[in-house]
Amino acid sequence: MNRPKTSPAFVSAREFDELFACVSNWGRWGTDDEQGTLNYLKPEHVRGAASLVKSGRTVSLSLPINTVAGPDNPRPSVHYMVKTHDLRPAHGEPQFAGDYLASELHGDSRTHLDALCHVAYKGKLYNGKSAASVTSRGATLMDITTYVHGIVGRGVLLDIPRFRGVNWLEPGEAVTCEEIEAVERFEGVRLDQGDLFLFRTGHHRRRIELGPWNTNPDGEGQAGLHVNAMPLLHEREIAAFLPDGDGETVPSNVEGVTYPVHALQIASMGMACGDNLQFEELVKLCDEENRWTFLVVAAPLRLPHGTGSLFNPIAVF
Amino acid sequence: MNRPKTSPAFVSAREFDELFACVSNWGRWGTDDEQGTLNYLKPEHVRGAASLVKSGRTVSLSLPINTVAGPDNPRPSVHYMVKTHDLRPAHGEPQFAGDYLASELHGDSRTHLDALCHVAYKGKLYNGKSAASVTSRGATLMDITTYVHGIVGRGVLLDIPRFRGVNWLEPGEAVTCEEIEAVERFEGVRLDQGDLFLFRTGHHRRRIELGPWNTNPDGEGQAGLHVNAMPLLHEREIAAFLPDGDGETVPSNVEGVTYPVHALQIASMGMACGDNLQFEELVKLCDEENRWTFLVVAAPLRLPHGTGSLFNPIAVF
Amino acid sequence: MNRPKTSPAFVSAREFDELFACVSNWGRWGTDDEQGTLNYLKPEHVRGAASLVKSGRTVSLSLPINTVAGPDNPRPSVHYMVKTHDLRPAHGEPQFAGDYLASELHGDSRTHLDALCHVAYKGKLYNGKSAASVTSRGATLMDITTYVHGIVGRGVLLDIPRFRGVNWLEPGEAVTCEEIEAVERFEGVRLDQGDLFLFRTGHHRRRIELGPWNTNPDGEGQAGLHVNAMPLLHEREIAAFLPDGDGETVPSNVEGVTYPVHALQIASMGMACGDNLQFEELVKLCDEENRWTFLVVAAPLRLPHGTGSLFNPIAVF
Amino acid sequence: MNRPKTSPAFVSAREFDELFACVSNWGRWGTDDEQGTLNYLKPEHVRGAASLVKSGRTVSLSLPINTVAGPDNPRPSVHYMVKTHDLRPAHGEPQFAGDYLASELHGDSRTHLDALCHVAYKGKLYNGKSAASVTSRGATLMDITTYVHGIVGRGVLLDIPRFRGVNWLEPGEAVTCEEIEAVERFEGVRLDQGDLFLFRTGHHRRRIELGPWNTNPDGEGQAGLHVNAMPLLHEREIAAFLPDGDGETVPSNVEGVTYPVHALQIASMGMACGDNLQFEELVKLCDEENRWTFLVVAAPLRLPHGTGSLFNPIAVF
Repeated sequence: MNRPKTSPAFVSAREFDELFACVSNWGRWGTDDEQGTLNYLKPEHVRGAASLVKSGRTVSLSLPINTVAGPDNPRPSVHYMVKTHDLRPAHGEPQFAGDYLASELHGDSRTHLDALCHVAYKGKLYNGKSAASVTSRGATLMDITTYVHGIVGRGVLLDIPRFRGVNWLEPGEAVTCEEIEAVERFEGVRLDQGDLFLFRTGHHRRRIELGPWNTNPDGEGQAGLHVNAMPLLHEREIAAFLPDGDGETVPSNVEGVTYPVHALQIASMGMACGDNLQFEELVKLCDEENRWTFLVVAAPLRLPHGTGSLFNPIAVF
Repeated sequence: MNRPKTSPAFVSAREFDELFACVSNWGRWGTDDEQGTLNYLKPEHVRGAASLVKSGRTVSLSLPINTVAGPDNPRPSVHYMVKTHDLRPAHGEPQFAGDYLASELHGDSRTHLDALCHVAYKGKLYNGKSAASVTSRGATLMDITTYVHGIVGRGVLLDIPRFRGVNWLEPGEAVTCEEIEAVERFEGVRLDQGDLFLFRTGHHRRRIELGPWNTNPDGEGQAGLHVNAMPLLHEREIAAFLPDGDGETVPSNVEGVTYPVHALQIASMGMACGDNLQFEELVKLCDEENRWTFLVVAAPLRLPHGTGSLFNPIAVF
Repeated sequence: MNRPKTSPAFVSAREFDELFACVSNWGRWGTDDEQGTLNYLKPEHVRGAASLVKSGRTVSLSLPINTVAGPDNPRPSVHYMVKTHDLRPAHGEPQFAGDYLASELHGDSRTHLDALCHVAYKGKLYNGKSAASVTSRGATLMDITTYVHGIVGRGVLLDIPRFRGVNWLEPGEAVTCEEIEAVERFEGVRLDQGDLFLFRTGHHRRRIELGPWNTNPDGEGQAGLHVNAMPLLHEREIAAFLPDGDGETVPSNVEGVTYPVHALQIASMGMACGDNLQFEELVKLCDEENRWTFLVVAAPLRLPHGTGSLFNPIAVF
Repeated sequence: MNRPKTSPAFVSAREFDELFACVSNWGRWGTDDEQGTLNYLKPEHVRGAASLVKSGRTVSLSLPINTVAGPDNPRPSVHYMVKTHDLRPAHGEPQFAGDYLASELHGDSRTHLDALCHVAYKGKLYNGKSAASVTSRGATLMDITTYVHGIVGRGVLLDIPRFRGVNWLEPGEAVTCEEIEAVERFEGVRLDQGDLFLFRTGHHRRRIELGPWNTNPDGEGQAGLHVNAMPLLHEREIAAFLPDGDGETVPSNVEGVTYPVHALQIASMGMACGDNLQFEELVKLCDEENRWTFLVVAAPLRLPHGTGSLFNPIAVF
């Protein structure tokens, strides 16, 4: 291939707004729709995804909950014991140990699912709803319980580093529309209606090898999607986007928009998006089974008014 | 039927210890086994469960996270906003709302999965491991990450109130082995190797109708399993137990053992057990589809050293 | 005395609004004043209070932090260990244990100090400021750091149960202006400019003897001040009000206003108010020293944007 | 003076153990003593301290609670709103805003008081008690409630940067016994029995000017006391040590002991020690009043089983 691995061209603010309009699903499923691209995921897709279960092997797509501060974890989750067994004399009653978890529900080192209310662009949420609906009381529209019955469908892993023959993409590298199509051909798969798009940049492979880093614009940045891939995701009518980073290329290729992928996917398209999934165990299974499609079941905690949730998506082969 | 709806006979401490030995799986899968009855759940069971997906409908088996104190929720979860949208002027950058959740991971009004380390009996965990392994640093054996790759299998709902023709079982009522077999016949299903046993007493139906109550021995108690059902679960080699209460009959039918079901299932059998699932949406689907078996995918948060996890199991029809 | 121990007369909504206007300090110390009645507490009062130190004995006026749920503690504070000593082998390096506290900053069983922003009445805070200034970002006006340099002055304990010859006031009993004056005469003290008024109803004595109770209007209620005492506090120019309940008589004696004392003291007068102090150790010292005035030093945590703070006020004799 | 500003000599492990024995107060006030050096602080010292109140001015010695991650704050405190005023329509009932604070109780950017149980050396706490007494249930000996009735006494500020004519001490600089005596002469004060020793290195002045830094041995380190000052503090019978860092010189001047000051002060001497006080407002008052002694009142939250507490000590002039 002669095309550059990284961003082909910088996108102007005007082009971005055109893109935002072009991929928009506002009104597509009614003015009160809160399901967004999950509307693409129909019962037949669920059945089809279930039919992919052959070997019966399962694998977690989640990182461990991270209680250690680091450049990608400035406000670590905390986990403490409520009751332990070690201090209690044994006796005839069963004894119960317990614990406590406190955590933000988004963040660079947490595997989580975004609610559609999570992202506002120019004062609007998906479907043109007012961002002001997310207040100190939490979300009153499109909270995480929108996804409470699970996101169940065909997972399609596009493993970009495998295609490129590298261990991981370097920060700042953007995966373009053209490269996605090339990876599809390389893997012999095609993103299609209702699919869950698992997008691997090798983010966590790099983290395992080199240690955590600051992925923000004031840090090293990270690899992600190029915004020119968004029309493809739109045309293909994929239902969900589940990357191993958060999908963003940092620094951004869009003029004046630091996180354009979230704006396009969530605010414009109404797409179900996870962040910071972990695919290192998955790729071993894909390799062993020589396939990149499988059943995925992902469900957030049932948190009314929440803007997101920690979750542990499961792939079933 | 002429048998009593409630406990047939009080079980003595000696009988309980015999029962504990009788259903024990200690050593069955090796001295270092941490999977317990999940060993029964084999790839062919996963495949079989996936083949049950017909209509493609999905449903959550979780209660909403409960931030309101009550008799069954003495230490409520807390949910606060980290960032809201309502106070920010719209501009060209996407904006992100976020929140924070702090919660104990067990408790009467939380849908959660118990790790095998959660329950000690006479100083021992499942497989004879020392309970002293659960310290202020968390569990060092059989923590909740034992289940990190998901519990995926055939869910079998035994709906006791439907069988009895009541809305719910009253506190103190115990479901015996004989009644379980009768419900199987009534529903035309049979608990079998590797199954996930969904056990419905109508706990949350009662809660919806009458409000929350204190389920402890110093309160009203609750309906649950009779310990005489445990050999059946053992013989049938079920993999997991997912009740709408926590499975315990309160007050207990066992002399000197307040929570015998947890001791038998978790400490003796090594069974994967959830607590406080919510089946009110599920029973509508079962009724509409006229079936009581389906695919279930349940996964805890990936919390190293945790003794349990909030979770949101999904049934797929 | 022939006057009733409890409320002399029910106060109408109109009378309440007149009272609110009558005791108001809005504008008294300038339109941007945030100190409220602490303006009464002048350096000479601090000096005078320090001169009361004779025996050098000190005593806490705080309850223990309460991690147990109860009718007056629906959302208990949590306290967990971050690091313990018990699991570490001794070696040549010093070792450090640590812990974690999570708590709401107000509540019926917590000794805390209210910020002036805590209470809004008809959309206004003290000094006529907009209540809308307290958002999901916290308070932007009159937060708890207003009191960061401490409330240091003469504490005057009026011990109502001692005056009445009872162990405690019963829920619903209101202490009137007339009774306060009678207690002053009985104790030989006089509330005066800049004083910190410690108001004892025996709330926690009752709690120790009878156990915790629900102090809300839907529960047993509690003893407190009658609103007819407010003009006296206003005329005397006291600086702070530190009660052993929260000062409110529940049920209220005011038509349509459930918590009138907070509205008058905080929103109208701008008074520094604590809640749920503990005087059981203090009264022993007062009795031994035969005096009801002493130095008090009270300081909130330095929490920017906070609406209140846990605190531990100290009396020095 | 010809002696070096920084550490005069490296202290060997053997010398350190001799020092530990030399300044030890184990057994001095009985085998069950939990007050340690607060035993030096007698009623006459409290009276004397109160007599220092002349101008009636007060000042906080606390940093703001820090919710922003940084090199000295890896696990920031969190502060969220429980209820706000901004979203509620005004009506005739007073309305209440509230908030929630979750925080570790020790840490480099928190003003806090250490309990004597906080530090173990060679398996022992102060007075030879077993460190194993601090478990997942918290401290069972010498918890922070030991100080619940307040630390009230004469504060003596030794302002090392002012003496040296610098803005702050640089990381790694150690203040020796000789320099302390020189600062005493310079200020015309003398640390004496029962005093609260406020030790200023300019830590927070440096933080304000240069931003936060990593004070650990793997970072830039910090200025503190040289261990050769400990016998002086012992001989003078001071009651408490309240520094603007945590008193430690980092890197340490002691062979194999990273934090020798805590070991000597807390484990050996049983000294009441705060960490990370803030003196920038205090030094202005000292300068204006031209004095370095004043009344100090410091009290921890009343947290049973706690190993420390956030606090806000107040100086009264």
